[in-house]
Amino acid sequence: MSTVLDQQRIEFGQKLVEHGWLIPTLARGVNGLGGAAEAVVTGLQTLSSRIAGEQDYPALNTLRFPPVNSQELLSRTDYVASFPQLLGLISTFSGDSKAHGSLLAAAATGEPWEEQLDPSGFALIPAVCHPLYAHLEGSTVRGECYQLTGDCFRNEPSDDPFRMVAFRMREYVVLGTEEQARGHRDLWLRLSQELLESLGLQITVESANDPFFGRAGRLLASGQREAKLKFEVLTEVFPGHPTAIASGNWHQSHFGENFSITAEDGSVAHSGCFGFGLERIMLALVARHGVEVSAWPSAVRTALDL
Amino acid sequence: MSTVLDQQRIEFGQKLVEHGWLIPTLARGVNGLGGAAEAVVTGLQTLSSRIAGEQDYPALNTLRFPPVNSQELLSRTDYVASFPQLLGLISTFSGDSKAHGSLLAAAATGEPWEEQLDPSGFALIPAVCHPLYAHLEGSTVRGECYQLTGDCFRNEPSDDPFRMVAFRMREYVVLGTEEQARGHRDLWLRLSQELLESLGLQITVESANDPFFGRAGRLLASGQREAKLKFEVLTEVFPGHPTAIASGNWHQSHFGENFSITAEDGSVAHSGCFGFGLERIMLALVARHGVEVSAWPSAVRTALDL
Repeated sequence: MSTVLDQQRIEFGQKLVEHGWLIPTLARGVNGLGGAAEAVVTGLQTLSSRIAGEQDYPALNTLRFPPVNSQELLSRTDYVASFPQLLGLISTFSGDSKAHGSLLAAAATGEPWEEQLDPSGFALIPAVCHPLYAHLEGSTVRGECYQLTGDCFRNEPSDDPFRMVAFRMREYVVLGTEEQARGHRDLWLRLSQELLESLGLQITVESANDPFFGRAGRLLASGQREAKLKFEVLTEVFPGHPTAIASGNWHQSHFGENFSITAEDGSVAHSGCFGFGLERIMLALVARHGVEVSAWPSAVRTALDL
Repeated sequence: MSTVLDQQRIEFGQKLVEHGWLIPTLARGVNGLGGAAEAVVTGLQTLSSRIAGEQDYPALNTLRFPPVNSQELLSRTDYVASFPQLLGLISTFSGDSKAHGSLLAAAATGEPWEEQLDPSGFALIPAVCHPLYAHLEGSTVRGECYQLTGDCFRNEPSDDPFRMVAFRMREYVVLGTEEQARGHRDLWLRLSQELLESLGLQITVESANDPFFGRAGRLLASGQREAKLKFEVLTEVFPGHPTAIASGNWHQSHFGENFSITAEDGSVAHSGCFGFGLERIMLALVARHGVEVSAWPSAVRTALDL
């Protein structure tokens, strides 16, 4: 049952591939990026770094975490409880030559050789701020800002180019008092709107919820909305269908509790984060300004160093 | 049975953590990077981009592939046959609320909940050039150069900071005639030596082999050495123990055959690649110049834009 919107997404995806913005891979929902696309993603990072540097944080720390972490991190952030449908664990092969022979024999006859692998304890991270909370475990935080960029995995394969299984996020995260955490989120909802509007996008900011799993998840989602914990930054890529390209979250003391992080007033730390969906913003800019970068408004090209 | 070398590696790792260069995570062999470390990695990419731009290729194309791809890619590159011990496949959860309850019940009692997941068909890439071969499937190549950067996964957890499970590679890949592919590899063995020496590292280049699996693998490895297909670029981080920080490979027509890629003379395409181990080079620079970037030689800081 394909809708008009589904069709628009597929056609936009085809255009992106045709003009070298996206490179299909052997996996559904996984795309490589062409040179122009990667240049836009780099420009967005440089631009947001500059804006972050102008803000008044006690410290701005740039850290970088790889896409792989421990399975334990998914449990300790409650991701297994809240978003089991999205997580990814890593299986590896630890057999001997005989077991390898059996693996290859299965592969040669088209049998599912992957079933001969075992869980490794490694997992993919679904958000670039998760490793930070583990890093800060047991510490006292004072409203410092962390600037993070990295690859995330979420198991939602789709033909919609905006919904990638593997994508990059630039996040700004503050841990501290409730005021510091919430204030940080609200600051970036404003800063990001200004930034994205300066690139020619029409932006709305709306209250939102995460895709919590199952029936119990519906309660969590409505609680999240009522408490105004999550806001999305949207732009209308397809007529009548705003697409989220960034979001700001106030986690209250969720991560502070799970990782024993304390604010300077002695209370359990609150956290707030703001994440730019780098590929989504890049795609929204192509939808807005066209597939030829040379035809983009010169102010946009200058801002993104294109 | 801990050797002196093991001890030196562990002590160097502790020093890196203490001074904020590496950030331990909940997973063995997986490290985050601090601000200085990431700045060095960025500087290395900028520097190698500039050198690549000065070479005489028919084209220099920058593409970017995410860390995730299809399990099929591991089979079609023969990675499952040659390096099963290093690969990683991704498992996901596709159950209903009842299955989720059972997952959480297992997790709560410390049972291995990961066994309730299923193979997804997604896999992690072990080298950033692999997705390129699939992208070029069925095409004719003319010695163009591809510049790729990305995260790789290799299942070899270790306490040696130089041996990370998740690490980044900057690769230069040429597909074309035998002469183009081999010439490209040899060019970069020279260029990389110059680049790394200009950063103050003492470099040797030596014939090498990949860690092919099992008894049959030993034959493949010695064949690879005899045919001089692989060379490593090494620096002596610990006395008497050179560490590979980059490598150049001539794959002959291996990938050209597997992905039906043709050179302009009508023959099956050969490929050659050169890969910088970005974290390894960064760590070698810290070992050489110390943990305080401000004390690094000014020529090195200038070259890396630190």
